[in-house]
Amino acid sequence: MERRVSLKESITSPIQLRLFCLLKALTTPCSKFHQREREREMEGIRKLLRVFSLLLSGLLLLLFTRSWLHLPNTPFDKAQLLDCSNYSPWCTSKNRFQSEIILNPRTPNPTRNHKSQIPHHPLDPLTIQEINKVRTIVSSYPPFKSSSFTVHSLTLEEPEKPLVLSWKKGDPLFPRKASVTALVKGQSHVLTVDLGSNQVSRHDIGSDSGYPMMTIEDMTTATWAPLANASFNHTILNRGIDLADLACLPISTGWFGKKEEKRRLIKIQCYSMQGTANFYMRPIEGLTVLLDMDTKEVVELSDQGRDIPIPKADNTDYRFSAQNTGEEIKMKHLNPISIEQPKGPSFTIEDEHMVKWANWEFHLKPDPRAGVVISRAMVRDSETGELRNVMYKGLTSELFVPYMDPTDAWYFKTYMDAGEYGFGLQAMPLDPLNDCPRNAQYMDGVFAAADGTPFVRSNMVCVFERYAGDIGWRHAESPITGMEIREVRPKVTLVVRMAASVANYDYIVDWEFQTDGLIRIKVGLSGILMVKGTPYVNMNQVPGQEDLHGTLLSENVIGVIHDHYITFYLDMDVDGSDNSFVKVNIERQDTSPGESPRKSYLKAKRHVAKTEKDAQIKLKLYDPSEFHVINPSKKTRVGNPVGYKVVPGGTAASLLDHNDPPQMRGAFTNNQIWVTPYNRSEQWAGGEFVYQSQGEDTLAVWSERNRAIENKDIVLWYTLGFHHIPCQEDFPIMPTVSSSFDLKPVNFFESNPILRMPPNVEKDLPVCKAAASA
Amino acid sequence: MERRVSLKESITSPIQLRLFCLLKALTTPCSKFHQREREREMEGIRKLLRVFSLLLSGLLLLLFTRSWLHLPNTPFDKAQLLDCSNYSPWCTSKNRFQSEIILNPRTPNPTRNHKSQIPHHPLDPLTIQEINKVRTIVSSYPPFKSSSFTVHSLTLEEPEKPLVLSWKKGDPLFPRKASVTALVKGQSHVLTVDLGSNQVSRHDIGSDSGYPMMTIEDMTTATWAPLANASFNHTILNRGIDLADLACLPISTGWFGKKEEKRRLIKIQCYSMQGTANFYMRPIEGLTVLLDMDTKEVVELSDQGRDIPIPKADNTDYRFSAQNTGEEIKMKHLNPISIEQPKGPSFTIEDEHMVKWANWEFHLKPDPRAGVVISRAMVRDSETGELRNVMYKGLTSELFVPYMDPTDAWYFKTYMDAGEYGFGLQAMPLDPLNDCPRNAQYMDGVFAAADGTPFVRSNMVCVFERYAGDIGWRHAESPITGMEIREVRPKVTLVVRMAASVANYDYIVDWEFQTDGLIRIKVGLSGILMVKGTPYVNMNQVPGQEDLHGTLLSENVIGVIHDHYITFYLDMDVDGSDNSFVKVNIERQDTSPGESPRKSYLKAKRHVAKTEKDAQIKLKLYDPSEFHVINPSKKTRVGNPVGYKVVPGGTAASLLDHNDPPQMRGAFTNNQIWVTPYNRSEQWAGGEFVYQSQGEDTLAVWSERNRAIENKDIVLWYTLGFHHIPCQEDFPIMPTVSSSFDLKPVNFFESNPILRMPPNVEKDLPVCKAAASA
Repeated sequence: MERRVSLKESITSPIQLRLFCLLKALTTPCSKFHQREREREMEGIRKLLRVFSLLLSGLLLLLFTRSWLHLPNTPFDKAQLLDCSNYSPWCTSKNRFQSEIILNPRTPNPTRNHKSQIPHHPLDPLTIQEINKVRTIVSSYPPFKSSSFTVHSLTLEEPEKPLVLSWKKGDPLFPRKASVTALVKGQSHVLTVDLGSNQVSRHDIGSDSGYPMMTIEDMTTATWAPLANASFNHTILNRGIDLADLACLPISTGWFGKKEEKRRLIKIQCYSMQGTANFYMRPIEGLTVLLDMDTKEVVELSDQGRDIPIPKADNTDYRFSAQNTGEEIKMKHLNPISIEQPKGPSFTIEDEHMVKWANWEFHLKPDPRAGVVISRAMVRDSETGELRNVMYKGLTSELFVPYMDPTDAWYFKTYMDAGEYGFGLQAMPLDPLNDCPRNAQYMDGVFAAADGTPFVRSNMVCVFERYAGDIGWRHAESPITGMEIREVRPKVTLVVRMAASVANYDYIVDWEFQTDGLIRIKVGLSGILMVKGTPYVNMNQVPGQEDLHGTLLSENVIGVIHDHYITFYLDMDVDGSDNSFVKVNIERQDTSPGESPRKSYLKAKRHVAKTEKDAQIKLKLYDPSEFHVINPSKKTRVGNPVGYKVVPGGTAASLLDHNDPPQMRGAFTNNQIWVTPYNRSEQWAGGEFVYQSQGEDTLAVWSERNRAIENKDIVLWYTLGFHHIPCQEDFPIMPTVSSSFDLKPVNFFESNPILRMPPNVEKDLPVCKAAASA
Repeated sequence: MERRVSLKESITSPIQLRLFCLLKALTTPCSKFHQREREREMEGIRKLLRVFSLLLSGLLLLLFTRSWLHLPNTPFDKAQLLDCSNYSPWCTSKNRFQSEIILNPRTPNPTRNHKSQIPHHPLDPLTIQEINKVRTIVSSYPPFKSSSFTVHSLTLEEPEKPLVLSWKKGDPLFPRKASVTALVKGQSHVLTVDLGSNQVSRHDIGSDSGYPMMTIEDMTTATWAPLANASFNHTILNRGIDLADLACLPISTGWFGKKEEKRRLIKIQCYSMQGTANFYMRPIEGLTVLLDMDTKEVVELSDQGRDIPIPKADNTDYRFSAQNTGEEIKMKHLNPISIEQPKGPSFTIEDEHMVKWANWEFHLKPDPRAGVVISRAMVRDSETGELRNVMYKGLTSELFVPYMDPTDAWYFKTYMDAGEYGFGLQAMPLDPLNDCPRNAQYMDGVFAAADGTPFVRSNMVCVFERYAGDIGWRHAESPITGMEIREVRPKVTLVVRMAASVANYDYIVDWEFQTDGLIRIKVGLSGILMVKGTPYVNMNQVPGQEDLHGTLLSENVIGVIHDHYITFYLDMDVDGSDNSFVKVNIERQDTSPGESPRKSYLKAKRHVAKTEKDAQIKLKLYDPSEFHVINPSKKTRVGNPVGYKVVPGGTAASLLDHNDPPQMRGAFTNNQIWVTPYNRSEQWAGGEFVYQSQGEDTLAVWSERNRAIENKDIVLWYTLGFHHIPCQEDFPIMPTVSSSFDLKPVNFFESNPILRMPPNVEKDLPVCKAAASA
């Protein structure tokens, strides 16, 4: 049974739809758009639309040039920004930042008046004022003054690591610098802008293959650029789709050979949003537009799936408002449940970015490419009271998401979500009470748009304390010893969360800090599958199941097999910068005859990695190891080197041919663990310029140099991997699947650091009652 | 600095200590026992003690025979049971069960008046009355009437599976039966006692190697039996240990050759509890007593570690009361935090054992061997409203914990905690607010003591709803599409928890039920390490680090390397009993020249296991598979077979020689996954009689028969594994380490079963304030 979805409900605000609505209003009232039987009208308006589409394309290009691509000479316009309703596409890139947003009146956020914000810490991100200043400097910088340019990245250029390490609260800040990546006439430029001298102090021109990550404006404009192409519109109409129901996605092209070189290309695929907000489930299969992102020229139009029906809208809408509330929901009602902290949270966020909780302190900032950056993570030693370094910097360096279908409309889907789309740019405002519990506090991102103007991504990150009913440690004496002991400590942790929606998929990234010194890095996958249209409606029609490249999820819908790899950059500084990587191999040792009634046992053998190749690790279940980052110069009281180990999880490994172009670009997934010497320029595992890159600047290439890593400032890289064979439960939206890995102290503390933690007692717990209105 | 621990505080109630206290009072006041300088007195009282020890041993044996080993002919004595303070060794085996225990007044438990309890469901455990009746029947059963016997197991003999499957609420119960395992003159007898006819209807005599699991009384008496041995007492005193400070542990001997045959042997190792409740950290290294458990005869005394000092008590006590509160605790204070449900939990426990929550229903019961048994787990289909079978029965079948030290005092430590010690017998009462959150409800275990009398293990299991701030599913539209959508659902789950304290170690077992149909089975390891004494105080004294067999944790303390394997029995009944096991292999497929710009992609290839050997799975990261249990006769609307998959986690694999005696006994860990055809007698992976078994009745032996398993009633076995190289953070008590695996629907539902779940809204959440007294 098809359910009617009102236009307002499902597709509010996209400019293109408003335009189409106006357009179509000439022949039929807009409110009637969503009638199921409209095919009858189609034939009549088709010719008319073709004429309009040509007119429209001109109009669109004009609008674009004015709105986004042309750098405005007028200063920052407050009135313009104020005229902005929440979540419109305009506002997501140029969000209101003048207003203080308090989403949860019970745990009011610290004042978030970004306009008057000033930096307090050398690692604090650029402020609104600083971004504006950078834009002014760059605009008047001679090589940029004469040509139009687009800003693809405008972020703090962090001071050199030794400077940051020496800095203490109260010290003056080092001169602030910005790193700007801009495209001018198709060429990548990287500038350092010195905010002290108001000068461009460095100007490099990109040499390697690849382009900077797309701007939001790139992606948005790409989605409707094909409408300027008559053939495109023709095939859409021929497939019986109302242009007003069209939703298109910009899909990074990857790199597969020469033809992708020398211009920025993108592929566009489209969907019908008729009858559902979940257009992703209604692919117009086999139709792919290859577009020049800069000229908006349609380079190629591949139209191979005309016989494949568009899957029906039935049962695809996931919004609560779209559920049939008339039908009885058979799952038993759940009583309200909440994590409650009536005295408020135990953490503070000082100076906007320094998070202090229990024994932890770290600097937290949103980043347009990485999403969340954790810096200077330090843990207080419960014995000495000393704050000890654990990690200088940790971030999501790159993602690699290859789909497993070699056919025309699918082979190129090998996303690298950070370097291509901006993992932070795609992190939308979190939904209080659902994305994060009520006791959460929120942090905004301040980023730059393509024209260099600042915008605010509100509530991009949340921080909350988590009590999941878990146990920190326990021991009860058994009747064997007869001692009356039962000591148990609840486990409370601190979570930093963001959720990036890279088109269909949602990635939830949690950095969880535990009082026992452990850091758990967890990635949850939810959101919506990228599906493929098919003529099949039942598996009994399918001759070779393996050739489906996935699972038949619903009539005419295949969930295509794919992998997810999320590679983390972890600049460990265990009690100082100079560390070593030690593989502690667990090996079977056979006993000598007569030595023992046992024939075998396991031994731990330590191997210190001398060079990078010693630390290229493929995990092996039957040849297991622990992986320690130790400080060889610092030992515990009984002489063990202090260390942290990486405890693998989410261990799916890439099985693609290493010479397959996508795997060359995603070669950082060739091993699960890598260790490199610290190098300021090696932070992005897929390379600085990932878009259309050919893989010559990846972690795999750097590591091949086989540099010395013993007793050096080293960086640990860990890749969380998932193989995903979709199943029907993933339709029309996926229950979250999570994996995590841990950074865990190993002989870092002299003893259990949470020994003295008190147990819960009834009198400390909150007194709660049901909400009055419930 | 040594801290003085009062006797009352640390060692209340063990009978042996009270006796020693009396004894020692002859020469010195009891209150002075814990003076550090008492070595001076020792010489003088040593000879006296030797005399007393002989007297004492006679006294103890007499006491034992009367109290535990001899079956009382008097009926159940209420007065005796009432005279019982919480947690004394006596009370743990003969706990009060006449009183209603309400630990948390805010979520009162259903009446737990076990005396009047009656069974409601065919799988309900035996009641107090039934156990008493069984004891009466067995006591008057001719072969048992004339000899003394000890009851090692007395549990419900479940009706045949088809009967249980056909039973519906309201139907009369089938005749109740008990299965009794008893030792008579060193021989194992297994009886079926029919409670309808009051007859013993089956009587088998154990034929295989091995003995039934120990009784609590076996273990308790074994710990002080060595005191009857003069050489033992001599060496203890020679090592400078006050007998009043002695704490001994019963360690299962395993099986290593002929000499263990034909009698029940146990090894005893001892510790000093002087100055600490954590005696486990103060081993009397190298002293091992081999004891005949039935005659109490010391068979062998191995005393090899006289030069090894007993590690100091400093910093070993983990009790909150023993922490130095004078010293400032440097970790920041955490504000109270709690999972709150002011309207109460959303689940009900009907008829004592049927848990109903959200879309789940299952039968839950405590078991002395397995700990917790989940039966008849069914999930309600949100589309049809139908309750669908998922799992007939799930339980912890066996544990295997081999230590990795081949030397005299360590080689035999290869515990099988369920079949040797009773995983449920060792599950102590949970600590409300710390072991389980405030919204938990508790369930008691009703077990039989060695004399066949019933006792209650109160609060052995808890059930609670868990909200951890996690996300069930989410999607936000990005500015690319411009749609104003942000739909997020919080994740609430139901947890069933128990915690077994098998001497030093604590195992936390969680069965977590999710509304999306997933069952997560999680094992947390905490408690206290089994450590080894050493002369070393610093690693710089150690010539060959690998020969330590572990990590130097503190001065004179080595944490020995060991593994943990927890093997689960999972009788899956996916929409019916006849299921198949399908390995869905993810394989690389290379493209043909010209086929695609891609060189490679991954394909999913399905292999249906025909026989048991097809389903002996060693996990491989570089040859990955999914593992489905499907119902080949039931397909979804689009034709996929309905199924559940096991999602591995905690994948450490045993690396020991398959012919090593411990690995022969623990051969069920030779693979991570096994599938067997359902066989009523094959429930315990290490065999029915595990104690001193030789491995001829394990899962590995059964599976070797290579029976057909396609489209049959099949049982899935999964082993969670941990390699544990201890680190200093594990001293003196270990922060919990957890691993889990999942049973996850795969094309079981037509679509996402939690699509219609509502989001959280502020008005439904509780209103909480800080507790008045806080």
